[in-house]
Parts: sequence; C-alpha cells; structure tokens
Amino acid sequence: MERVTVRVGGRSYDVVIGTDVLVRADDLLPDLPGSSRAFVVSDRTVGDAWFPTVCEALERRDLHAVLLTVPAGEDAKTLDVFRTLLQQLATQEAHRDDPVVALGGGSAGDLAGFVAATYMRGTPFVQIPTTLTAQVDAAIGGKTAVNLPEGKNLVGAFHQPVVVICEIGALVTLPDREFRSGLAEVAKYALTLDVGMLGELERDPGSVLSRDVIALERLVTRCVRAKAASVEEDERDAGRRLVLNYGHTLGHALERLDAFAGRSHGEAIAVGMVFAARLSAAVLGATELPSRTVRLLSSLGLETEGPLPSVDEIWSAFGLDKKFHGGVRFVLLHDVGRPEVVDGVPEAEVRRILHEMGAAA
Amino acid sequence: MERVTVRVGGRSYDVVIGTDVLVRADDLLPDLPGSSRAFVVSDRTVGDAWFPTVCEALERRDLHAVLLTVPAGEDAKTLDVFRTLLQQLATQEAHRDDPVVALGGGSAGDLAGFVAATYMRGTPFVQIPTTLTAQVDAAIGGKTAVNLPEGKNLVGAFHQPVVVICEIGALVTLPDREFRSGLAEVAKYALTLDVGMLGELERDPGSVLSRDVIALERLVTRCVRAKAASVEEDERDAGRRLVLNYGHTLGHALERLDAFAGRSHGEAIAVGMVFAARLSAAVLGATELPSRTVRLLSSLGLETEGPLPSVDEIWSAFGLDKKFHGGVRFVLLHDVGRPEVVDGVPEAEVRRILHEMGAAA
Repeated sequence: MERVTVRVGGRSYDVVIGTDVLVRADDLLPDLPGSSRAFVVSDRTVGDAWFPTVCEALERRDLHAVLLTVPAGEDAKTLDVFRTLLQQLATQEAHRDDPVVALGGGSAGDLAGFVAATYMRGTPFVQIPTTLTAQVDAAIGGKTAVNLPEGKNLVGAFHQPVVVICEIGALVTLPDREFRSGLAEVAKYALTLDVGMLGELERDPGSVLSRDVIALERLVTRCVRAKAASVEEDERDAGRRLVLNYGHTLGHALERLDAFAGRSHGEAIAVGMVFAARLSAAVLGATELPSRTVRLLSSLGLETEGPLPSVDEIWSAFGLDKKFHGGVRFVLLHDVGRPEVVDGVPEAEVRRILHEMGAAA
Repeated sequence: MERVTVRVGGRSYDVVIGTDVLVRADDLLPDLPGSSRAFVVSDRTVGDAWFPTVCEALERRDLHAVLLTVPAGEDAKTLDVFRTLLQQLATQEAHRDDPVVALGGGSAGDLAGFVAATYMRGTPFVQIPTTLTAQVDAAIGGKTAVNLPEGKNLVGAFHQPVVVICEIGALVTLPDREFRSGLAEVAKYALTLDVGMLGELERDPGSVLSRDVIALERLVTRCVRAKAASVEEDERDAGRRLVLNYGHTLGHALERLDAFAGRSHGEAIAVGMVFAARLSAAVLGATELPSRTVRLLSSLGLETEGPLPSVDEIWSAFGLDKKFHGGVRFVLLHDVGRPEVVDGVPEAEVRRILHEMGAAA
C-alpha cells in the first residue's frame, strides 16, 4: 500500500493506493464529526461489484451507507442527474456533515464531487476511483463538473476530497478499452512530467498491459505523485496545473463535437497528444516528439489517428475552451519532460497541422 | 462614501457604500485581466432602473455589458433559472475571466453568485445590491444559493465577490414593504452585535424610516462592518458567523412551509427573532429581551406575530436546517449584544413557546 499526501488550500488529504485497500476503507477514512450516513454515488455495474464492500467498511465506522445509482459514464454528468441527486439528499434529510462518496470512474467522481461541493454549500467528499483514468487523474485535485449541451465540464467547482482510495484490484477487471483509455492519461504524465516513467513504459509496456498488480500500484502511485505536485503548486488551474491539459485542447474539442466517432476521453486525448506533439515540433522545434509519441501510444494499444471534424469546426470548438485567454492557449513541449504553456500560436500553423492529420479544410 | 474592507480566505475586497456610487462603478471595480464582457443578472424592474447606469460605467472600462433578465424575487432562485443562465453564458461563449454582475436584491445576488461560482468552475463576481436586505446582509460574505422544492438555499457555494457596490440612492425608491423587510436584518445586527446601533434605533427610528440618505449610509455601513467582522472570523459558517442566523431558524422554517402566510424573508425573521427572544428568556434568563425585541420591531413597522404552522410542522422543518448538528442548534442571547450558539435546547421548551405564540399543538 502506498500513500501520497496532497497539500492544498491550507489543508491536506491522503491518496491511498493498493490492492485490497477498499475492505479497509474504515481505517482510511479521516474523522467525520457529526456524520451518521454516507451517500454513495455509483452506476449499476460498479455499485453491484463494490458497494457491498464499501458498505461493510462504512458500517464499521457507524456510517449507514445509502446507495444512489446514476447512469454510467458521461450520461451521469448532466444538470438533470445533478438535480435528482440533490433532491434525493434533501428528501432523505442528508445533513452537511454527512459525506458524499464517489464510487466509480471519472464521471461518477465529477458528478458526485459537484453534488458534494454544492449540497448545503459543501459536504465532506470521499473519492473511491475504480478506473485507471480516475485513479491517476480525475479523482485527485478537487475538480468537479457536469456538462452542458454546449460543452464538457462547463459547470463545476473546486472541492477537494477528504481522502482518495485507489483500489488496484478494481483495475484488474476493467474492460480492456477502458483500461487502455486510462493509459492515455498515464502517457500524458510520462511525456510531460516524468521522463523516468516514460523510459520504463518504453522499455517494458508488457507488465502494465498484462495488469500485473505490483506494476499497476507502482504506475498509479507515480502518476498520483505527479498530479499531486501540480495541484499543490496551482490549485486553481492558473499556471503549472495547465500542463496537465497536454493533449486536452484538441481532445476536448473532439469530445464536444459528435464527429469524434465515439472515442472515449482517453482515446480523444491520445489523438490530442499526437496533435500537440506535431504543434510542438512546428512551434518549439521538438522534432522527434511526434514519432516518439506515436510509438509510445501504439505500444500501449492506443489509436493515434482516425476521423476528425473539419478544421473550421475544431477551431470554433477551441473558442469555448476554458484555457482561452484572449486567444487559444496550448500546452506544448520543448522535449519530453519540458512543458510550456504557449499563447499566441499562429492560427495558420494550427490549421495546417489539423489538415495534415486528416481534418477537411 | 464609505469603504469597508472584507478580508477572507487569503484575499480581500471592498464594500463601497454611498449615494451616487453606481455612476462611478468604473472607478470602483478592481482590475479584471482578460475580461472583455460583463454579464449582468437582474430582474426587469431593477434592470430598467439601473442597468443603463451600470452599462455606461462598465463601457468606460472597456467591458461590454450584457443584460440577462431573470424573474423577480425568490422565483429566480431555482435550478431551472440557474441552468438557463449557464446556457446563456455558454451560448455567448462567455469566458472564465468575464465577470458576472448581480444587480438587484438578495435573490439576484444568490442566483448570480451561484452561477459565477460554478460557470467554468468560477468567474469573477461583482455584487451591486439594490435592496436594504441585500446591502446589509446577503451581498456580503460570499454565500450563494438556489432553492430546492424541499427547502431554501439547499444548493449553493461560497464564492466571494471582487467588489460590492451599495448604492444608497436605490434604497430611497424601494417599495415600503421591501424596505421594512430589510430593517428586520438591521434589527438582527443591533440586537446581536451592535448595542450602540440598537440604542440609536430605539431613540430615533424616524430618521431611518424617513429614508434620510445620511442616516441610511451610516446604518448600512454599520451593518456591513458587523457582517464583515463575522465573515472574516468564520468564512465557512462554523462558529461566529452562525450568530448572524439569529431569528433565522424559525424564519427559514416559516419560509419553507407555505403556511407562513406570504411573509417576506424579513417579515419571517422578525417573527423568528421574537421566538428566539422568548427562547432566550426561557433558556438563558434574558427576561427583558422579548418585550424589548417586540418594541424595536414594532417601531420599525414590522409585525411581531401572526399565523403559524402547527408545532409539529415547524419542528420537522427544523430537522432540515443547515445548523443541524446532531440536534437543532439555536442562536440565543444572554442579553442584547451577548449571543451564544446553544446545542441541546429541550424540545419541550421549543414546543411550548411555539404553542404560546399561537402554533397549533
């Protein structure tokens, strides 16, 4: 079992990573004075698999666990589901000391976190991420959100959890595609912040792909450390933390435009990282980055190309990006491990590369 | 013109109070880097009266003002209106640096503040309160919220404004009933925190009731100082700030139960303060408080009695109160200016007093 402490906004919380940590959740929860119930937000599949374990652990802490079932995946992240959860809490007279627990992937965490951030102006929040994406990224750092029809994550809040429990056992049974999607976020850390991990992944992608639990615990811990360091430096996403958006500008645009041909978040940012690498080569002279990026992603089983919307559609989707700052802002790399946030990238350059990657002019 | 600085959560903002301060709003706004538009949330009446003034001032700061009209009063504080505003911002491609401006009473402020707190996880927020209630209370301290059918203010966030501009001129034309409703909050400060102001109100309620602008500027400034001090000590409503809920436990219950016979917020907390005074007399021996409270409120034109729901209805509404902490918690007074947060008040005592005040057993 590994433990990473995140210090942010004057307080701190632990991210606990390991196999069979969930059965010991009662020992891992911090003190929650005044609470008598815990409201666990989960989709049906994850709830069936893990709620009984969570429930038992919570009962040992005299917390009665109440399961609130939500749709799986992005379908959970709507204002309608948000409202339904809030009304369920109000109807059951949940109090502001009662924790809300996210049990599932990034979507359950984003949704439950936004509920925890806003019900009675904030209740304690526990993250139990069960996907690779959520364990290495979404569950750490306090970003919560739901989507609008106009775009992803347009409504949300910063609300830090009181503890994050990463059960490595949950990764072993993850559907293949979901697991690979998480590897895209892992590749992001490797390319932008952790060249040591990049080397290991390049030498031996096999132990990760075979889901060796020791290798996974090590990998998740490394990513969590990188994420924690970024969050500690920049809770509100103004500078350093922006680096974690590497590959996400195009990635989010692809997710926003239905034309993204059914890609998952990880699949979208994999293509986004190829685009970012090519833009880095053009703007910052990182000439070897595109081919190295494609090799890494391919070895992890991720697609690096595929159908794209038109250049105009993508460009106008960039306009709604939260990183907009009087012009689209890109996270680029001088080389692996050397990120820079770049303003004022020439529009023509962006359009040229999108066109080269197959987007219609 | 008076200026009160509120220091909270590692930053500070000014509350500016005076006659004709709104025409100078451009000088009072802090620096807002990256912003090009301001989204002004207001109801039709207030918007008609004040938006042109605000708009002109903002244009002098190169901020294009966009008016978003919402229903008047509590009808604005729903998740439906919240969603409509968010989608209007997204459709117009508002960016996270663009300020949201609340122009109006407490409801416009609560709603617009919650939008500002959550659109793109937080945009700058400007408060321009135009009612007495909002100037002395709602606009200061960063509490934002909307209602659920299950209760008032059950969904919200803490989001501090970057500046609060209190235009005293707006109070002069306020409908009589709305003005008196604000005096209930003024009376709350006087009874709980500012015995000097209490003495002045008792000696000369006339200069306030006649809406002398000098007297009003003085009164609002005193209340803002009291509120700012409470907020600074306790942003998150855990201790000292609870004192500002004096009279609000029954007040909120009356507002929640339709049986409150159409009382405004101020009218509801006026009755709530009479109840709190009687409970203070019974529990803390503040024997003269009930009659003094009734005298003060009456001299300010506020009703101190009237139809009540049944004792059982009120008691169960208390259960959903956010101050619940393993039992209903009341703010009581040992005497004027000597508040205490009291846990474990005997239920029988609460019921007896409600019954004495006319609630059916």
